[in-house]
Amino acid sequence: MSRLGPLRCGAWATLLGQLLRPPRVVCIRAVGCHSQVAQAVLTSQLKPHQEKQNFIIKVPKGTRDLSPQQMVVREKILDKIISCFKRHGAKGLDTPAFELTEILTEKNEDNFSLMYDLKDQGGELLSLRYDLTVPFARYLAMNKLKGMKRYQVGKVWRRESPTIAQGRYREFCQCDFDIAGEFDPMIPDAECLKIMCEILSGLQLGDFLIKVNDRRVVDGMFAVCGVPEGKFRTICTSMDKLDKMSWEDVRHEMVAEKGLAPEVADRIGDYIQCHGGISLLEDLSRDPRLSQSQLALQGLEDLKLLFEYLTLFGIAEKISFDLSLARGLDYYTGVIYEAVLLQSPGQAGKEALDVGSVAAGGRYDGLVAQFDPKGHNVPCVGLSIGVERIFHLVEQRMKASGEKVRTTETQVFVATPQKNFLRERLKIIAELWDAGIKAEMLYKNNPKLLTQIHYCEKAYIPLMVIIGEQEQNEGVVKLRSVASREEMTVNRESLVPEIQKRLSLS
Amino acid sequence: MSRLGPLRCGAWATLLGQLLRPPRVVCIRAVGCHSQVAQAVLTSQLKPHQEKQNFIIKVPKGTRDLSPQQMVVREKILDKIISCFKRHGAKGLDTPAFELTEILTEKNEDNFSLMYDLKDQGGELLSLRYDLTVPFARYLAMNKLKGMKRYQVGKVWRRESPTIAQGRYREFCQCDFDIAGEFDPMIPDAECLKIMCEILSGLQLGDFLIKVNDRRVVDGMFAVCGVPEGKFRTICTSMDKLDKMSWEDVRHEMVAEKGLAPEVADRIGDYIQCHGGISLLEDLSRDPRLSQSQLALQGLEDLKLLFEYLTLFGIAEKISFDLSLARGLDYYTGVIYEAVLLQSPGQAGKEALDVGSVAAGGRYDGLVAQFDPKGHNVPCVGLSIGVERIFHLVEQRMKASGEKVRTTETQVFVATPQKNFLRERLKIIAELWDAGIKAEMLYKNNPKLLTQIHYCEKAYIPLMVIIGEQEQNEGVVKLRSVASREEMTVNRESLVPEIQKRLSLS
Repeated sequence: MSRLGPLRCGAWATLLGQLLRPPRVVCIRAVGCHSQVAQAVLTSQLKPHQEKQNFIIKVPKGTRDLSPQQMVVREKILDKIISCFKRHGAKGLDTPAFELTEILTEKNEDNFSLMYDLKDQGGELLSLRYDLTVPFARYLAMNKLKGMKRYQVGKVWRRESPTIAQGRYREFCQCDFDIAGEFDPMIPDAECLKIMCEILSGLQLGDFLIKVNDRRVVDGMFAVCGVPEGKFRTICTSMDKLDKMSWEDVRHEMVAEKGLAPEVADRIGDYIQCHGGISLLEDLSRDPRLSQSQLALQGLEDLKLLFEYLTLFGIAEKISFDLSLARGLDYYTGVIYEAVLLQSPGQAGKEALDVGSVAAGGRYDGLVAQFDPKGHNVPCVGLSIGVERIFHLVEQRMKASGEKVRTTETQVFVATPQKNFLRERLKIIAELWDAGIKAEMLYKNNPKLLTQIHYCEKAYIPLMVIIGEQEQNEGVVKLRSVASREEMTVNRESLVPEIQKRLSLS
Repeated sequence: MSRLGPLRCGAWATLLGQLLRPPRVVCIRAVGCHSQVAQAVLTSQLKPHQEKQNFIIKVPKGTRDLSPQQMVVREKILDKIISCFKRHGAKGLDTPAFELTEILTEKNEDNFSLMYDLKDQGGELLSLRYDLTVPFARYLAMNKLKGMKRYQVGKVWRRESPTIAQGRYREFCQCDFDIAGEFDPMIPDAECLKIMCEILSGLQLGDFLIKVNDRRVVDGMFAVCGVPEGKFRTICTSMDKLDKMSWEDVRHEMVAEKGLAPEVADRIGDYIQCHGGISLLEDLSRDPRLSQSQLALQGLEDLKLLFEYLTLFGIAEKISFDLSLARGLDYYTGVIYEAVLLQSPGQAGKEALDVGSVAAGGRYDGLVAQFDPKGHNVPCVGLSIGVERIFHLVEQRMKASGEKVRTTETQVFVATPQKNFLRERLKIIAELWDAGIKAEMLYKNNPKLLTQIHYCEKAYIPLMVIIGEQEQNEGVVKLRSVASREEMTVNRESLVPEIQKRLSLS
């Protein structure tokens, strides 16, 4: 079969001959890594005639396997997110894991050291995608689409320093929702914020707050504070670090590293302390300095409209207009937002603590035009949910509560208390599978009954079908509830309907 | 927010300043590619001060986007496959898209030109996975697991010549099910074949046949035919091409390219014409030449047992013992199998035509030991479903039947026939979303009613909520069935329960 097995590789060619020879172990060591996976050094058996190689069995730095337990948790989170996206009428989309490098960035641009490039093996130069936004913009332009409401769930890759303890990986999953198209102002933007609220409420992660700002307000603020135009983006990048660094450190970076005049930095420092709601927007519109920027005034007007819609959506109290919000990605052109979880909400005497952001997004009206041959523009606004961080929190909560997770969905186990009943078990289990019943049995000719019962208990399988000599002679089987240990006798031919009845009741 | 936006890249830094300037188009051309996506050449606007670059907006060779229509089809296929895996008690697993290159193959082994390597950017040498089997074996060894029944669905990558017309891509999705552990012979192997039958029947792809053989029979056959032991794997690779090449061509490759004696090739040629069921197994066990190989006899004995279990499962008539089956991958050690779809089943006078294989697998008892530091062995057997080929067939069938696909699940559309009802629409739709109802509206202040009705018809949205001046004054809304155009008046406060009632009935 060509699709599934055409790897005409010589690498495994010597394996068969090596299977009988036990590998020589050099050493085994447990490496204290965050994911606590076993790591071991072994002698490669692959090149018997060459020098032996030692290599460590591990996953690449910053990546991880998801165990069955973790998969269950992750799927629950993704289900909640995707059903919210569908509730808002989004269509699904999938794009390749890699794109032409020149689509993701300019050639020879060493700033993109965060991107995983594929080795040049002849043919096109390719890189792994670092987000789902650029591929979406590329898709719109390539297919000449003027509008689309789409969601996409997929892995993205960034060669950053992984901080696994905080749920930061080099391979991670993003869930994106975007609205592309020419529409009246702030209506799709408000819906994006509504979606973030629905998802964060639905996942029950505790109290949260969505910070909102507008790139036009940021740029207007920079202009009136006296930032030279050529430094807008780099100062914006410094500002984006305010969630990890104090203002003093950010100010130092702006002045010492980026050459901003101290008084300019101080003017910025005054503004970025402002956060609030509609009344702050009104105040800033009348601010003698900021109101000199037409760009800032436009941004403030749109934000006022946004807050009006958020009030109609009933979520205004979850949103905070925050002048310190900058967002790292440079493609944003309008509203930007970022959701943070608040620790210990409502605890008197304690200030709500920011435990990190779990969702973010904004308006990027110029990105599609970069890919469109005629420069046609398709305005876009969207959001991205960071699954890893949420997963980390949910997993911690489950560990704390001791909540048990079923990693299979098996409903019925087919067992026997006697020897030589494999064939009967095979016949019964095939009947169950054919009726759509989730069923398992042990792959042993003569398993012990106790082993089979323990398997059910461990895997939380609710029902057992038991067949033995007596049952076979009488044309019946026993149906046993694993939890209550109650048994009933069922006619062999009414086994499937009886099980279906029991399962539909539970 | 650091996780979602920390790309401190300069690549977009010049974008904002460029947005007002229309890009200069060099030329636009439609490239006749199989996926029929629009391709266009545009002048890069990214480096205004450097020479302009032309680049083509396209996806990488051998890859594709999945449109919303395609996503719906794909998800239906994956749902069927995954629910079958779960019916058989499998647990989910996820592994990174890339692995350490040395885990996937030997270093400096140029035979692995089919693998996508990541560029050496400092740190570990990495390659994209080319299947899900090797990562599974690595996972078992790394976590010292002695057994596991797992499924995994994910993309894999191979740098082969893509033949997109036949559904062959360089990026494609595999659905794997494997049973790892020390068990009594042929019980898990039989279950793998049962799963393949259930999935192929469930997907209604037409008649199919699963060819079965055993690597021990293949190797025994090679031995008794006189193939030198060092040539087993390369002759096996030639034999694997029998689904694409005639025996004459394969024989020529064996003799002219691989230096096999012509009479040895002819002896193989006699055997590989054999296919059948249990009686063929009996015959071959008594074959004077083949029975000289203990290895072949062991394989034949196990295959007899397998057929006994397949009969109990009721699927023996779907299985054909076929001595021509070799399987390309070198890690197989026992039973191997491959499912092929048969065209025009039952058409008298026409022989069933092999339209290609859609699922395959086998037993690989030595792979985990390669990764285990102590060389502990975990026998495994499994299968892989090739989603792309199946997707291609289902898509063709749907196109032929003219079947319509809904790409959204929206249940209710919130409309107005009058101007200045945006705020009311926003309030209503938020109520619907909060009640879990899938709802959409147009992002326009004052959309035309006809536009809104057309939107519903095009998107197959069944229900419309209509709010206008009269309704607002009376504290009601209209509920309209898009298909029947029937309208009813509903009290504003009983809108959600009324919709829920209507949706639960439909």
